[in-house]
Amino acid sequence: MSKAQLDQINVQIETVDPLWLEKAAARQLTLTKPPGSLGRLEEIGNRLAAIQRTTTPNVDRKRIYVIAADHGVTAEGVSAYPREVTAQMVDNFLAGGAAINVLGRHGDIEVRIVDAGVDADLASRNELITVKNAGGTANFARGPAMNRDEAERLITTGIDLARAAKADGIQLFGIGEMGIGNTTAASAITAALARADAANLTDRGTGVDDRGLAHKIDVIRQSLIVNQPDPNDAIDVLAKVGGAEIAVMMGVVIGAALNRIGVIADGFISTAAAALAVSLCPNVHDYLFLAHRSVERGHAALIDFIGLEPLLDLKMRLGEGTGAALAMHLVAASARLLSEMATFSEANVSNKPSTD
Amino acid sequence: MSKAQLDQINVQIETVDPLWLEKAAARQLTLTKPPGSLGRLEEIGNRLAAIQRTTTPNVDRKRIYVIAADHGVTAEGVSAYPREVTAQMVDNFLAGGAAINVLGRHGDIEVRIVDAGVDADLASRNELITVKNAGGTANFARGPAMNRDEAERLITTGIDLARAAKADGIQLFGIGEMGIGNTTAASAITAALARADAANLTDRGTGVDDRGLAHKIDVIRQSLIVNQPDPNDAIDVLAKVGGAEIAVMMGVVIGAALNRIGVIADGFISTAAAALAVSLCPNVHDYLFLAHRSVERGHAALIDFIGLEPLLDLKMRLGEGTGAALAMHLVAASARLLSEMATFSEANVSNKPSTD
Repeated sequence: MSKAQLDQINVQIETVDPLWLEKAAARQLTLTKPPGSLGRLEEIGNRLAAIQRTTTPNVDRKRIYVIAADHGVTAEGVSAYPREVTAQMVDNFLAGGAAINVLGRHGDIEVRIVDAGVDADLASRNELITVKNAGGTANFARGPAMNRDEAERLITTGIDLARAAKADGIQLFGIGEMGIGNTTAASAITAALARADAANLTDRGTGVDDRGLAHKIDVIRQSLIVNQPDPNDAIDVLAKVGGAEIAVMMGVVIGAALNRIGVIADGFISTAAAALAVSLCPNVHDYLFLAHRSVERGHAALIDFIGLEPLLDLKMRLGEGTGAALAMHLVAASARLLSEMATFSEANVSNKPSTD
Repeated sequence: MSKAQLDQINVQIETVDPLWLEKAAARQLTLTKPPGSLGRLEEIGNRLAAIQRTTTPNVDRKRIYVIAADHGVTAEGVSAYPREVTAQMVDNFLAGGAAINVLGRHGDIEVRIVDAGVDADLASRNELITVKNAGGTANFARGPAMNRDEAERLITTGIDLARAAKADGIQLFGIGEMGIGNTTAASAITAALARADAANLTDRGTGVDDRGLAHKIDVIRQSLIVNQPDPNDAIDVLAKVGGAEIAVMMGVVIGAALNRIGVIADGFISTAAAALAVSLCPNVHDYLFLAHRSVERGHAALIDFIGLEPLLDLKMRLGEGTGAALAMHLVAASARLLSEMATFSEANVSNKPSTD
């Protein structure tokens, strides 16, 4: 991605128009409820109105991309589960047996699975979207996870996924991921972006023990020393200590904003991707929602970096887009309330101070 | 309700069997996710399993009772809206234009409207469930809101509503309410149960100003002095400073537990009803879920009294069951995850420590 291309993207992503926020807020005051009584649902509804440039937003068509990839850094022994689980879980997604499949059915959400770099031959799988060049990243404890060209290619792939979804009529996105080792990548990205030590940003992932956690912190510190990612250059951070699924998620977030569609980040790893997207294209912020507060300790730093409050806090740490799926119900509710509630005059309900 | 009748109800409401909680927890460990990674959804799923005595709980059939009544205490000028709004909003509910109607459609939830004491002739309304004896309570700033017989009759009515829903196949309940003046009743109940001063438990309701709030606190203090409700006698508290919709909600909560059905309290007023139900029949606790943390300041004391953590915190304060409707999606998700996710062996996913 040349400087010129990036500048072009940044010009195309406009902040939402405050006039639409005002129009939506004015409509909220006409609806049959005390002013402000729907709390954050009003704030979200207003933002959806501004994103869609209407006071009656509609986000019925929902899709989550679950993006999978392997990580070379698993060679350092940073995960409680073997690397093979990434590919096994892709098959579980495709068979409909994973948590995200259940929540997709429950929330009337299309779930699409993307292979961004799984270390297995999955070519025969129906309904798997394959965008990979390689079976995962290199071990970033020893050098960059990928080169800059590959990072940019994967981001572009994500932008393309968003464009294709727009063509399919999708009105709200979620992103989720699967990749054994990817909490290590997310913690390294967080340490780079927040310019902070890994110790406060690293947690147990799928469940390493105390010794495993101390080792994981050492590996991340080592990775940052070896690679020296530039915190002012999101693509540099991504290429050096990121992952292929993180790159594609970053692209989907940028693509959602380019297409004026709201996008919900899930937990720790997808929020790392969203933070990279915001770092690269700051106006993405206006199209972004954070699903939930993960129990992974690094998540709080990413939430602060982005400057948005998550919708849920359910002590989850699964990934796959599971938090995004649950939050979608709330985001879609916000749109429907703003669009469908009766006004005081339509319902003949008094909207004046009591004279008692 | 005689002492013998109440004892009988308390014998019939059993605590959930810890063996079913253990069986559900054991099943959670077989599902394709890191142990505990679904956080509170696992805790909720396990409780639903214990309530239904199965490791594959099902709560697809959902109903919210929205229970409306007027309050004599509005004569004291405690609300920002005129009393007529209660009846107007009942018509709005029946026409499908209120927030709870939108959220009911959004969440595939049956919404049933109950007139427990609205001060208007609503007899001609189709689909309105009428259980009232009177057009609302007496002004409890001057004497009891109702007599004990009426309070017990209304509780019994709520128990009957739960039994009827069970016969209809309902698997999960929510309760919500509408009643101009009912935050005053809920604050008075909270002050009585928590044995605390009204000042810390009273808020703006539908939106009174600073002077209105100070007056509302005075009215509640006065009501407690005049009525001297016995905090150890939930029916006494209800009759003296409660409301008709609060009595029926209290009955629905008790009836849900009697019929082994989970029930979700909404915000401040419905949690006051749930707290009275727990006070009268402590085992109700095992069947109860709290939807959300209301911004009404008295809600925190009720949450502490009950000893359950709400699922959502969206800065809402609308009532009607709106928070319960949103939380139902999460509760139902918990059941589906436990029931529908593939196990490690079914999905051929490795569930053993990495040997890296």
